Amino acid sequence: MKNIVILGSTGSIGKNALRVIESLPSKFKVIGLAVSQNYSAVLKQAEQFNVRHIAVADPSEAKACALKAPSGIMVHHGPSGVNELASLADADIVLCAVVGLSGLKPVMAAIRNGTDIALATKEVLVAAGDVVTKACAKSGSLLLPVDSEHSAIFQCLSAKGIKKGSNIQHSELNRKKNHDYGRRIDGSGVRKILLTASGGPFVEKAVDFNKVTVRQALAHPTWDMGKKVTIDSATLMNKGLEIMEAHWLFSVPVDRIEVLVHPESIVHSMVEFNDGVVVAQMSVPDMRYAIQYALTYPERLDTGLPPLNLAKTEKLTFMEPDEARFPCLLLAREAAKRGGTMPAVLNAANEIAVQKFLKKEIRFSGIWRLVEKVMRKHRIIKDPDLDTVIDADTWARRTAKESS
Amino acid sequence: MKNIVILGSTGSIGKNALRVIESLPSKFKVIGLAVSQNYSAVLKQAEQFNVRHIAVADPSEAKACALKAPSGIMVHHGPSGVNELASLADADIVLCAVVGLSGLKPVMAAIRNGTDIALATKEVLVAAGDVVTKACAKSGSLLLPVDSEHSAIFQCLSAKGIKKGSNIQHSELNRKKNHDYGRRIDGSGVRKILLTASGGPFVEKAVDFNKVTVRQALAHPTWDMGKKVTIDSATLMNKGLEIMEAHWLFSVPVDRIEVLVHPESIVHSMVEFNDGVVVAQMSVPDMRYAIQYALTYPERLDTGLPPLNLAKTEKLTFMEPDEARFPCLLLAREAAKRGGTMPAVLNAANEIAVQKFLKKEIRFSGIWRLVEKVMRKHRIIKDPDLDTVIDADTWARRTAKESS
Repeated sequence: MKNIVILGSTGSIGKNALRVIESLPSKFKVIGLAVSQNYSAVLKQAEQFNVRHIAVADPSEAKACALKAPSGIMVHHGPSGVNELASLADADIVLCAVVGLSGLKPVMAAIRNGTDIALATKEVLVAAGDVVTKACAKSGSLLLPVDSEHSAIFQCLSAKGIKKGSNIQHSELNRKKNHDYGRRIDGSGVRKILLTASGGPFVEKAVDFNKVTVRQALAHPTWDMGKKVTIDSATLMNKGLEIMEAHWLFSVPVDRIEVLVHPESIVHSMVEFNDGVVVAQMSVPDMRYAIQYALTYPERLDTGLPPLNLAKTEKLTFMEPDEARFPCLLLAREAAKRGGTMPAVLNAANEIAVQKFLKKEIRFSGIWRLVEKVMRKHRIIKDPDLDTVIDADTWARRTAKESS
Repeated sequence: MKNIVILGSTGSIGKNALRVIESLPSKFKVIGLAVSQNYSAVLKQAEQFNVRHIAVADPSEAKACALKAPSGIMVHHGPSGVNELASLADADIVLCAVVGLSGLKPVMAAIRNGTDIALATKEVLVAAGDVVTKACAKSGSLLLPVDSEHSAIFQCLSAKGIKKGSNIQHSELNRKKNHDYGRRIDGSGVRKILLTASGGPFVEKAVDFNKVTVRQALAHPTWDMGKKVTIDSATLMNKGLEIMEAHWLFSVPVDRIEVLVHPESIVHSMVEFNDGVVVAQMSVPDMRYAIQYALTYPERLDTGLPPLNLAKTEKLTFMEPDEARFPCLLLAREAAKRGGTMPAVLNAANEIAVQKFLKKEIRFSGIWRLVEKVMRKHRIIKDPDLDTVIDADTWARRTAKESS
């Protein structure tokens, strides 16, 4: 039985995680649920899953929640309340599925405790990959990817072969839970990571990016996700952020992480090994496969998720992305290459730009124009610590908000 | 440095194995080469690779060879000479790439010695899978698949996940070489094996199987292989034999091994796990990938084999085979289901039938008619030992030869 804390339980990933957990009642107990503000929904979830601890990040919503909460449910208030939840001593896994960098501090709190992290919030690694991965190495926490692409890569990397002599590489013993099953899966022996991208709604259409509506950009052809990540998919910024996420998760240099547009969203990513062999992971496009793998790892369990019928799949196709049409990919590669605080700045500026687009304050093409503008104004600080990352993030948000 | 013995060194697999070995001079030393009769070619190979031991299965060819062999090369005579080669005490791997059941006795000799087997001759497992796998379990020999499909499955199975508690399953220590790197890769946690088939030259064409010529049947669209296996690919008997091979290699029941026609021959096979995830292995269609993986296992090495460019691959498609058009698949499933000596009989009858077709003694459709006729005449013996298997094989060959 694993004890799970879910940060962002009313979002798309959070709700799907609860479906997975519901399908495996003997495997998991939910011990904490955190949300930013939607307190009535989280109260219902807490009742259904018999959860004692909930956290509400918005302080006034937290107060309102505390008044409504039945006895037996403890409400933790504000961002520090979310950190308290992530730090619960009996948590085995903290699933971080909040939007954006607000996941960083609770994730760090959980890692310091030696708790494993199932990470859906890629921004945490984009902005602070060095800080987070070093903390994991120190405490023995496993970073389990929840993004379908990174879960796919994680699964494909198992096939990488084993260096003779070094044998199976066991992860350092987790100080807290005495893990003995973990293998450190890293990118040695890997020639390339092939990150697949559905390409979003515009990849195969000649559209005027100055005229794209919010509705058009939110109409993702294959995946049903939250608004922020759906817009990021349409600009391909999502893939840019995923390049950085993959870099930190698997220690593979950014220039060996390639993007392949794969409109069918059946292959969730691939690894090309040193010998020229490519291993691919596939499933029906549904985020529960990756969520479940992260939660049940290292086991695979049958929970009745629909099988893939390749004979009924018309075809699988792959093409190189048109980087000239999708400048976000190049901006992300540039930020990754320049390093230091620049990825945090790209990420923060992009969050604000997407918000502005959703509020119809800027055009679709204004997203990358705004991100680039903020990046050009930034003076990089190398080897940032956690506070420096957060300062850069704050600066970039402010700068992006003030820009037009 | 691994010492390699190659049985069938002048065939298609043998020659490609030598190319792989040539590309990794610091990794391998060839210590023995065996052929059925082509002795001038094997003498050249022995000279090039500085090999001391050669064996020629045909006794009169062996005598002629001994007369021509330069000093320093020892010629082993006849089938027992091939067994002597397979039994060389300093062999680390015996690559068995002979045609048909003649590989069985040398493979058993190597296994008794605790030598690892790189197995290209699927007939050995088809006819005597139970005997061979039990001998491996006893001596600690690894059975490393060389067929591209089975190599693919072997690689995909690494991603199967690890049962908590049982941890990594180490193979029993190999008595001879003190293997410590091996993992026993079996089919637990696997829902299905998806064996891909190019489908051969006739899969998408409406052809009259009574009128197919030898030339048409030998024109394989994607793979360049020996004649026997090329004809088996055209009848889909090859896939039937591969179902049985996969069953013995990975302990997966035959009814959970499905065939998917995949005309592009890029995906070499797939595994569907319990959680509904499918993992696939791909490469340019070239048998050196699988040969190299078997020889370098558990390592993956860069020898300059061409990388796969999926963006330049038009599409990947998959379809269910038309079992009504290709009765060999059903015959093979029937033989597997009935068990005992029946798979050996199917295999032997098929070898003779293919020979007869190549000599234009029977039609293409006569291949499965002849196999079925012999199977109908056979009285199965359950749990056969090695001699019983060989007797059944001999009976089936004679019966097939005598049939019209």
